[in-house]
Amino acid sequence: MKEVVAGIDIGGTNIVFGLVDRDGEILADGVLTTSDYPEFPEYVAAQVKGIKDLLAINSGLKLISIGIGAPNANYYKGTIELAPNLSWKGIIPLGAAISELSRVPVTVTNDANAAAVGEMIFGGAKNMKDFIVLTLGTGLGSGIVVNRQIVYGYTGFAGEIGHLTVVPGGRICGCGKQGHLETYASATGLVRTVSELLGTMRNDTPLRDIAPAKLSSKMVANYAQQNDPVALRAIEYTAELLGLGIINSIAFSSPEAIFLFGGLAQAGEMLLEPVRHYVDKNIMPIFRGTCKIIPSAIPENTAAVLGAAALAWNERS
Amino acid sequence: MKEVVAGIDIGGTNIVFGLVDRDGEILADGVLTTSDYPEFPEYVAAQVKGIKDLLAINSGLKLISIGIGAPNANYYKGTIELAPNLSWKGIIPLGAAISELSRVPVTVTNDANAAAVGEMIFGGAKNMKDFIVLTLGTGLGSGIVVNRQIVYGYTGFAGEIGHLTVVPGGRICGCGKQGHLETYASATGLVRTVSELLGTMRNDTPLRDIAPAKLSSKMVANYAQQNDPVALRAIEYTAELLGLGIINSIAFSSPEAIFLFGGLAQAGEMLLEPVRHYVDKNIMPIFRGTCKIIPSAIPENTAAVLGAAALAWNERS
Repeated sequence: MKEVVAGIDIGGTNIVFGLVDRDGEILADGVLTTSDYPEFPEYVAAQVKGIKDLLAINSGLKLISIGIGAPNANYYKGTIELAPNLSWKGIIPLGAAISELSRVPVTVTNDANAAAVGEMIFGGAKNMKDFIVLTLGTGLGSGIVVNRQIVYGYTGFAGEIGHLTVVPGGRICGCGKQGHLETYASATGLVRTVSELLGTMRNDTPLRDIAPAKLSSKMVANYAQQNDPVALRAIEYTAELLGLGIINSIAFSSPEAIFLFGGLAQAGEMLLEPVRHYVDKNIMPIFRGTCKIIPSAIPENTAAVLGAAALAWNERS
Repeated sequence: MKEVVAGIDIGGTNIVFGLVDRDGEILADGVLTTSDYPEFPEYVAAQVKGIKDLLAINSGLKLISIGIGAPNANYYKGTIELAPNLSWKGIIPLGAAISELSRVPVTVTNDANAAAVGEMIFGGAKNMKDFIVLTLGTGLGSGIVVNRQIVYGYTGFAGEIGHLTVVPGGRICGCGKQGHLETYASATGLVRTVSELLGTMRNDTPLRDIAPAKLSSKMVANYAQQNDPVALRAIEYTAELLGLGIINSIAFSSPEAIFLFGGLAQAGEMLLEPVRHYVDKNIMPIFRGTCKIIPSAIPENTAAVLGAAALAWNERS
């Protein structure tokens, strides 16, 4: 029997899961639609059945543990707590419920921490002791690794680089406070920057013909590639604030690398090059050139399942 | 024979050292004048002789190791690197030289990290897994502890909270960059704030009769206690920026407590109360009330030797 773990990624739209071996190969996978399970116990039953079905049709595999990436997850307690994008309200005993029905150990953390463990076990950080993963999507999530351990802190919620204050008194954040990094350096932050710039700049640009609610970070990146002046300036400003957040993160934990992942990171070198330039110019001299700023080595389409599976494998090492 | 370690704190003016038992009692101590030893090998000989002299006059003690707190110290290499306030230039093999002559293991780190280990072994953090010590002196030093380990990072220089950017484009820092926390939240930062406020405010105050170079943070604190409006506003502004640095530190590593230590911290509740108020008001809700902001539990006059000794004891645990 070959030992495998199950990796589960719970999102607001889909729940993806898969059986993963020690080398990071996904041997079988499945998907549930989150809205099909408004009641938590029904989800637990369907999830464990989904995993057992995968085991049934793939003979010779032995499930030894389960890792789960989920929003607002508490690693210490194995719970999901007050997640705004899920219908399961209050404090949900996710780890305990899945473990009881599946009869294997379950580890739970948030998706950005799972991405960091994925990078450490299967990706670009296999040989690194200290590194950070930033997930640039709708918001900005982060997983901080120090001495090959995720930083959870006293509360279990450490690693909120998206909520570093980079512009005191600045943009209103989803958390209710102001000037946080994720209000600038994220897909939605980039779109907000375009709106601001359409006010401050006078240039003629097709961006004025698009309702902000219809605008995506990908569209802004495409206009920037066509040398649209507002889109170019928006990318540059995003890079500056992301650079500032990165500089502060390096002063704190001095990582060997910062990996960028997620929708906005797909802008690639157009975003990374000005970020590196800003960091080089503004970082304190002792840290200059010490930290690589690079894309994640985990493919976007398998990252969620691999990160969650890496979490399970990591607990056994 | 009772086992003891030696703790050594190397400063620009004095080098203090002592023999310390496992309970944090200083059984004997001594002091060298830094300027008496312009050549490093002479210092090494005098230092090891100083420790041996203490052992000779205190019978029944067995030296098992040495811990050293020093400026610009690299924990990984045991070196002092390019310290601007010492006459020993370049990269100094401090740990190797002291170990060779004393024939015991030597551990070296910077003074803020030593203070954090002191807090963990002998002070208020004995039962804490995650905490931070901020030393508010001429500059702002910090020691960050995650999972009961000092965060050294890839370079060995992690934990530079004093160099977090809190005012983009703000005051010039000693490191050459701008807007760093220590240019505001330190003894010298407070004096710089008074100078700025004497420009922006019109109030009549005795602070206008003191040359800035003669002004100390203690004098500013005294004037604030007498309700001087400029001194009061200076303390308040210092508290706000220290609070911002603390908020960003909590978002990063979610410590159970942040301990304040050093000259400026002696302003006590006059500084701490507005810091706590600012943090409570501006921190993201998930972290509100999770982190104590309190004075160090280690007395100022023994902290340097105890911190260095704690470093040595900690390596053996």
